[in-house]
Amino acid sequence: MDLKTQALNMHRSYKGKMEMISKVPIESMVDLSLAYSPGVAEPCLEIKNNPSTIYDYTMKGNLVGIVTDGTAVLGLGDIGPKAALPVMEGKAILLKRFANVDAFPICLDTKDIDEIVQIVKALSPTFGAINLEDISAPRCFEIEDRLRQELNIPVFHDDQHGTAIVVGAGLQNAVKIVQKEISLLKVVINGAGAAGMAILRILQQLGYQQIIMCDSTGIIYEGREEGMNPIKEAIASTTNPLGLKGSLKDAMDEADVFIGVSVANLLTREMIDAMKVNPIIFALANPNPEIAYDLAKEWGVRVIATGRSDHPNQVNNVLAFPGIFRGALDVRATDINEEMKLAAVQAIASLIEESELREDYIIPDAFDERVVSAVAKAVSDAAIKSGVSVLFQQELKEV
Amino acid sequence: MDLKTQALNMHRSYKGKMEMISKVPIESMVDLSLAYSPGVAEPCLEIKNNPSTIYDYTMKGNLVGIVTDGTAVLGLGDIGPKAALPVMEGKAILLKRFANVDAFPICLDTKDIDEIVQIVKALSPTFGAINLEDISAPRCFEIEDRLRQELNIPVFHDDQHGTAIVVGAGLQNAVKIVQKEISLLKVVINGAGAAGMAILRILQQLGYQQIIMCDSTGIIYEGREEGMNPIKEAIASTTNPLGLKGSLKDAMDEADVFIGVSVANLLTREMIDAMKVNPIIFALANPNPEIAYDLAKEWGVRVIATGRSDHPNQVNNVLAFPGIFRGALDVRATDINEEMKLAAVQAIASLIEESELREDYIIPDAFDERVVSAVAKAVSDAAIKSGVSVLFQQELKEV
Repeated sequence: MDLKTQALNMHRSYKGKMEMISKVPIESMVDLSLAYSPGVAEPCLEIKNNPSTIYDYTMKGNLVGIVTDGTAVLGLGDIGPKAALPVMEGKAILLKRFANVDAFPICLDTKDIDEIVQIVKALSPTFGAINLEDISAPRCFEIEDRLRQELNIPVFHDDQHGTAIVVGAGLQNAVKIVQKEISLLKVVINGAGAAGMAILRILQQLGYQQIIMCDSTGIIYEGREEGMNPIKEAIASTTNPLGLKGSLKDAMDEADVFIGVSVANLLTREMIDAMKVNPIIFALANPNPEIAYDLAKEWGVRVIATGRSDHPNQVNNVLAFPGIFRGALDVRATDINEEMKLAAVQAIASLIEESELREDYIIPDAFDERVVSAVAKAVSDAAIKSGVSVLFQQELKEV
Repeated sequence: MDLKTQALNMHRSYKGKMEMISKVPIESMVDLSLAYSPGVAEPCLEIKNNPSTIYDYTMKGNLVGIVTDGTAVLGLGDIGPKAALPVMEGKAILLKRFANVDAFPICLDTKDIDEIVQIVKALSPTFGAINLEDISAPRCFEIEDRLRQELNIPVFHDDQHGTAIVVGAGLQNAVKIVQKEISLLKVVINGAGAAGMAILRILQQLGYQQIIMCDSTGIIYEGREEGMNPIKEAIASTTNPLGLKGSLKDAMDEADVFIGVSVANLLTREMIDAMKVNPIIFALANPNPEIAYDLAKEWGVRVIATGRSDHPNQVNNVLAFPGIFRGALDVRATDINEEMKLAAVQAIASLIEESELREDYIIPDAFDERVVSAVAKAVSDAAIKSGVSVLFQQELKEV
């Protein structure tokens, strides 16, 4: 049976992938009177009198809302909130499976930025954190920015930061293998959407200085006129220090690293040959990467990572987001800030010791049991250190 | 240990009463590729191309959103959305325990009617039905009316209709015991809030013709000037056919039935003595009824029901709402209409055969295992018969 049929059968036979269950017994009138009326009035009154006890008496502290408007679902585009639900259920069960985080899909039947922000704010009393999912760029940037400012719970856009964190970790390890100096590396990022932007920001913080960003128009540079917008203006001003112009092909000349979050099969033999020695490629277009794995190896790429599970070095967000939410919730963080994201990068990268590093093993396996706890610990520590943990910093106001 | 301490300890030790779990295995890369990317794209595309298949591939068809703004929580009043969460979690696990319905709390940080309607509409793609909970009157009436009109999934306000259905069922059986004729009975309903209004409507449909409704001002009658509003004007025009005026005490003169959804201990010996022979009393104020159970028996009340679990004849909504949602979801009803509510009344009432009826057994026990399936079956049948089942009426448009 092919994957398509198997996937449809599985979803149909279970009628969705998640369910809500009770953690408490309800087998007697006493059970009822504790879990519901009249006993339930007691935690209600405690929370009313001291709102932060909501973390003691309810599921809020372990609960993530997975918010989408269905505008950029997987590689399928704007398929709407109903068609997005299988993905959101999937995300929710991954959070449970990998990090024991409870999560619930919020699929919104609106694309209006103001309305999405307003609704998520109105829903926020119940949630310990918000994960934005599959919201199209550039709308996702504004929604994330505004919610981070206006809510006192963490807001994280996994399509951006989850991907960027795993790429950052993998690239750190790939660079160790080729023994190059980060600050001197020429890195080409192809694709200026949500993931590309977040990868750019992570790499800048990791010390990469020569980053060239390309979109469908070609290299982004200061003064370019075609296909610009405020976000691309900002990209132009912080990347491409030599002011390169031209096509992706021009960008690839003497590049050390290529990171694609774009479309299938666009890397040519000529482009690969134009790269510096020991080229590193992250070809993340799904389901078909910017260059097929086997072809990349054949053409002399030293390290290749893709989004696919049937090749080594899979860039899989599941390495990042479960531990990140676990870590943030564990210390009741009010934000998932840059310090926490960088801590996650280092935690994932350092799970593979230098002696174990190989061209086909720069990223831990999705089922490597050490990942979640290592990421969660690093993220918790970074939250405390950067002053966004309510639980471990007395001077912070209680939420 | 007292109930208060026990309830707080229980909530604290479990950190909330519900959790989200996976129904599918996630133990291998194959599992991952079916439940998440790339396999999950297949049900997404199916739903995009044929939206009604969302019922086949997701949890929607078994999922109820429990929506509150925290303005009328239990007897605690407007304690806000955070403090309401323990009740909503409780409601959710009761739906699961009694009817295997999945449910999720939506506690909204707004009291604006337009905003609540807008948000619930935006959230509706994910849910198979909406239960409104603990929203203050008269706001709850408008919210329910508008959502019922604008959504194609059922919207049910349990504080109104759940209570009314169980009262209706209990009263049907109580009347059998005293062998009186429904159309001739004088019924006093004290309390014109959400529950009182719904009880009125159910009793009118059951054929009760002499209903007197009282509020804190006294009897509601056509032409009354004090404390009226459009809803009470409507009450006045369909009740109190003899145009009685005066206080609750006046209303109780020669009454056969008293139904209180009001405040503790307001029934006096004098009022009881003024009732007709074989008085029936539903004293539903919580936690302390309008008349204490033992006192009612001492003063000669023939049948007394309360909201309390420590006396016979408990009016417990859990007898109604789990089966109602089960029945509505089972046939993919687009509404929970009057026919379905009346079917639930009869289903609950007829679980006690006439030979079993006693003064202290007019309502089944909350843990009577027959209740949910009987109610669900009756509600499903009524949905089909009244033409609101998508699954069992081909000519209805698919949602």
